[in-house]
Amino acid sequence: MHGLAAELFPICRSITGDGVRQTLAVLQRELPGMRTVEVPSGTPCFDWIVPPEWNIRDAYILDPDGRKIVDFKQSSLHVVGYSIPVDTALPLEDLRPHLHTLPEQPDAIPYVTSYYRERWGFCLTHQQYQSLKPGNYRVRIDSTLASGHLTYGELLIPGERKEEVFISTYVCHPSMGNNELSGPVVTVELAKWLVERARRYSYRIVFIPETIGSIVYLSRHLDLLKRQVVAGFNVTCVGDDLDYSYLPTRLGGTLSDRAALHALKQHAGEFKRYSYLDRGSDERQYCSPGVDLPIASIMRSKYAAYPEYHTSKDDLGFISPAGLVGGFEALRKAVQAIEANGVFRATTLCEPNLGKRGLYPTLSTKETAGQVRSMMNLLAYADGRHDLLAVAEMLNVPVWTLAPIARQLLEHGLLEQLD
Amino acid sequence: MHGLAAELFPICRSITGDGVRQTLAVLQRELPGMRTVEVPSGTPCFDWIVPPEWNIRDAYILDPDGRKIVDFKQSSLHVVGYSIPVDTALPLEDLRPHLHTLPEQPDAIPYVTSYYRERWGFCLTHQQYQSLKPGNYRVRIDSTLASGHLTYGELLIPGERKEEVFISTYVCHPSMGNNELSGPVVTVELAKWLVERARRYSYRIVFIPETIGSIVYLSRHLDLLKRQVVAGFNVTCVGDDLDYSYLPTRLGGTLSDRAALHALKQHAGEFKRYSYLDRGSDERQYCSPGVDLPIASIMRSKYAAYPEYHTSKDDLGFISPAGLVGGFEALRKAVQAIEANGVFRATTLCEPNLGKRGLYPTLSTKETAGQVRSMMNLLAYADGRHDLLAVAEMLNVPVWTLAPIARQLLEHGLLEQLD
Amino acid sequence: MHGLAAELFPICRSITGDGVRQTLAVLQRELPGMRTVEVPSGTPCFDWIVPPEWNIRDAYILDPDGRKIVDFKQSSLHVVGYSIPVDTALPLEDLRPHLHTLPEQPDAIPYVTSYYRERWGFCLTHQQYQSLKPGNYRVRIDSTLASGHLTYGELLIPGERKEEVFISTYVCHPSMGNNELSGPVVTVELAKWLVERARRYSYRIVFIPETIGSIVYLSRHLDLLKRQVVAGFNVTCVGDDLDYSYLPTRLGGTLSDRAALHALKQHAGEFKRYSYLDRGSDERQYCSPGVDLPIASIMRSKYAAYPEYHTSKDDLGFISPAGLVGGFEALRKAVQAIEANGVFRATTLCEPNLGKRGLYPTLSTKETAGQVRSMMNLLAYADGRHDLLAVAEMLNVPVWTLAPIARQLLEHGLLEQLD
Repeated sequence: MHGLAAELFPICRSITGDGVRQTLAVLQRELPGMRTVEVPSGTPCFDWIVPPEWNIRDAYILDPDGRKIVDFKQSSLHVVGYSIPVDTALPLEDLRPHLHTLPEQPDAIPYVTSYYRERWGFCLTHQQYQSLKPGNYRVRIDSTLASGHLTYGELLIPGERKEEVFISTYVCHPSMGNNELSGPVVTVELAKWLVERARRYSYRIVFIPETIGSIVYLSRHLDLLKRQVVAGFNVTCVGDDLDYSYLPTRLGGTLSDRAALHALKQHAGEFKRYSYLDRGSDERQYCSPGVDLPIASIMRSKYAAYPEYHTSKDDLGFISPAGLVGGFEALRKAVQAIEANGVFRATTLCEPNLGKRGLYPTLSTKETAGQVRSMMNLLAYADGRHDLLAVAEMLNVPVWTLAPIARQLLEHGLLEQLD
Repeated sequence: MHGLAAELFPICRSITGDGVRQTLAVLQRELPGMRTVEVPSGTPCFDWIVPPEWNIRDAYILDPDGRKIVDFKQSSLHVVGYSIPVDTALPLEDLRPHLHTLPEQPDAIPYVTSYYRERWGFCLTHQQYQSLKPGNYRVRIDSTLASGHLTYGELLIPGERKEEVFISTYVCHPSMGNNELSGPVVTVELAKWLVERARRYSYRIVFIPETIGSIVYLSRHLDLLKRQVVAGFNVTCVGDDLDYSYLPTRLGGTLSDRAALHALKQHAGEFKRYSYLDRGSDERQYCSPGVDLPIASIMRSKYAAYPEYHTSKDDLGFISPAGLVGGFEALRKAVQAIEANGVFRATTLCEPNLGKRGLYPTLSTKETAGQVRSMMNLLAYADGRHDLLAVAEMLNVPVWTLAPIARQLLEHGLLEQLD
Repeated sequence: MHGLAAELFPICRSITGDGVRQTLAVLQRELPGMRTVEVPSGTPCFDWIVPPEWNIRDAYILDPDGRKIVDFKQSSLHVVGYSIPVDTALPLEDLRPHLHTLPEQPDAIPYVTSYYRERWGFCLTHQQYQSLKPGNYRVRIDSTLASGHLTYGELLIPGERKEEVFISTYVCHPSMGNNELSGPVVTVELAKWLVERARRYSYRIVFIPETIGSIVYLSRHLDLLKRQVVAGFNVTCVGDDLDYSYLPTRLGGTLSDRAALHALKQHAGEFKRYSYLDRGSDERQYCSPGVDLPIASIMRSKYAAYPEYHTSKDDLGFISPAGLVGGFEALRKAVQAIEANGVFRATTLCEPNLGKRGLYPTLSTKETAGQVRSMMNLLAYADGRHDLLAVAEMLNVPVWTLAPIARQLLEHGLLEQLD
């Protein structure tokens, strides 16, 4: 995963443009089933309109001595996202309003965009900003902002059922690690893992630009999503190895919330619980009133909650192979919890006679004693009201260890599955 | 408010009689819209009957030397409320059973009544009681207990809607401060404030004798109150500056409870939360089974919870101008919370585009950032299920700061109001 | 109670056989209304079949010197329950697999059974086990395992209503105190107490072998029990004087749970609250899905939670007269709580006039003040929604002190009973 992130890192992504297309092409190589969709600029989507497409080829500042002191080719963060083209010379005083820095993080380049108001600008470290000499500067941004398309990727992995788990991640930030590339690379890994196993649910996975992308996607598929999606996750900030974090759906308590909490508890033990008031990614659209899809977030360090966020410090060093594996594992376990879940009902009145069916282990060890206890507890709560996740939470065991026991009891006719 | 309390202080009020009428006449001067109602003695009201009217002109004790040692004209507390007339001489031993004192508060005159059993008596400090010399005493109570009326005041302030907020306070205790005059004077101030502003709800304000007055009022208006009252408060003990207190409705959770808790939290921060088991005023009738009106109490120091209660120490010095203002403000904010509340639903799917409507502030400061955040949160919870009070509690901001934002969004067509 | 336990102690009980019959005969002497029921071996009961009947007359081990070192006549625990007959000689090495000890409690004889797999064995202290010399041992178990019956006792105590309280206890363990005899002897005492008083509910009391007995009983009476049982308790481990314990029904919140919690709180103050996951007696059957009877447990030290459990140390010394009385009292109070409970509604609107009915005490003391307060609170919550147990919990007073007040108010026509 870290290698794929490194390959994608230099590409200058934004909410539209060739950077998105290049990124999706690389992801398509990994996930051949994925298709890309182009939505024309000007297309209405709920209260919004698909914006013009932005592309950029080069951008730099030459200082009064003609030296290239800020160079887009060194970091795609150097240019304000959606900057209109400019090619002019101007004194330092006039240049200053177009320069963005972080005085409190003087060696970091900030990430700045201006999607819906036309302007141009550069981002640089505050250290460099402070060393600028008076004089005439030459600035050039070789960009275009013109009618074109918004591009996204979509992958459908069919399962036994039409009901879907919906996974959304975004591909719209330039060269950043946790708050950009961790999402798509962990999602790719999750998709590969899903393709290789039997699945109860179908999976719908989208790689979209944040906010406008989810609005566009919802405006085209809302009825279908509301009909078919039983759970889902927004995959973002899953690559560092500091924290684990959970952000609920708007009202909480959905299958996604329960699976996320179960997976994080079983996988990480301790984790940060945010409120929906702390939201900031595509759950803003997925969970909005009337949309109300069950989309929760499992994260490592949450966006806007670590100092490197939205700066050049959120780079390939901030994320790590182990951090990405941790993010992947937490999500995989949440998906496993959803797959393992089910509503069961006992077929006998009173406890069944397990002995006559050979369901008591002949050798009694601590492990087998725990299994028998789990089997008895599962039967005790197989009342058609408590699903397997609820029983797992009561027993404080991973639901994926109860699922094989439920299967065994199903095979012996001691349980029936209601869902 | 403190001046009005001082004006009313000397009047000898009881549950009936001219003391109530004089008090209501002063309040009517302040609130010209108020009308007074006379209910004849003997009128049945649920399980009760309006008692005879009690009036008193003078009362005193002369000691063996002929000196007036207890004088009703010095304090209306000196005579037991509803004392029958007496004019006799008797030795100290025979007088003693008619004297009431507080041995544990030796310099305080207690407040004693005997509404439903005919007797006579005097109240005095325990210090004075202990200095009484043996000998023959002359006692006189120039009172009448006869068929007459129970008197109360009623003020209706119409609003946009027929639904009412019901405010009840009592005018039946003699010369006391917190547990008598604070209620009517704060209620007068609240009524004046209500008259001067646009109101969504209508307001029904009553000045009644405690217990028998609320029973009489309910027996005449129960159907109407049950149909129209959406919230309300019993106003008592709102004049000292020690505590803030909350006493819930019988089952809690009504709009009145939610508004009271919100107002006290926003206004006072810390406050005492009593249980309905600690009740002791007219909520006993308003919240009784089958009546079940949503009447909660917002207080400063609660009745029966401070040592000065029901003694001559609960005087104009125990209440204070600042204490009365605090009581008024807490109640006013609860009323504001009720007025500000509403159920809203977003008209767009997904987040709306605030920028194109100029709803993003052009200058970004901490304050405007908070407003935008509140606007986004309000839209996120505008699902027709969470009212504005619920959103305000989630955001931990005063609901009266959310109301203008809701109005702005209504004007831009981004919200619709459901109630 | 302790005397009765001592009388029953030596009898070798198991899940079937003459030990059960002897035990029931003694109980029948105490409770003449009890009948015994014989269910033939081989009778199907849900997923089970009534097992063969086991009887034992003698069992011993002779050491290489011919000395009787283990003797069933000394303790019925010495033989593994349901041991098949054996009469042979064998070297120590071959005997060892048939010997059961507790290495961690070297002076205790363990309690071991093998109901559903044919084998034979002896139980002894680990100390004795370690002193065994090599050589040839002679073992004899004079038992029979043959078609016969499962025996249980049943007592019906009719009340005003057909609705029943169901009390179940077991008579299937050999010589043990807390985890065997405390149950039946406390149940006998409870039955005697019930017979002597007026009862609102009918009482169904069963003395059965654990697990297979409750399964058999349920298989014959399930429909009736589901129709008529409003509450009930499994009586076990009610004889020591260490702890008080509560184990809920499967989902909690039934009348049995509420009565148990109320009784334990009022009787013991502090007690241990177990989870249904800690279950281990006949609630496993009574609360199983589809059966769902409201059977909770009130215990002293819970089975499997004290070191003497299932050993010879759980003897007549582990239980005590005071411990049995405590267990009896806690259960009796839970039954009293069920009998005292009721749903009431006030017949007047607003508070009634208690004075005119003489319901105000003429002498005012702390006790009478508390009674008046309870009366007013009872009237305040007599809304047809809160039953007497709920009011008692709110007031933190025993429900059996509220019941006479409710009766008084019923007699004065101030309350009506809805259930």
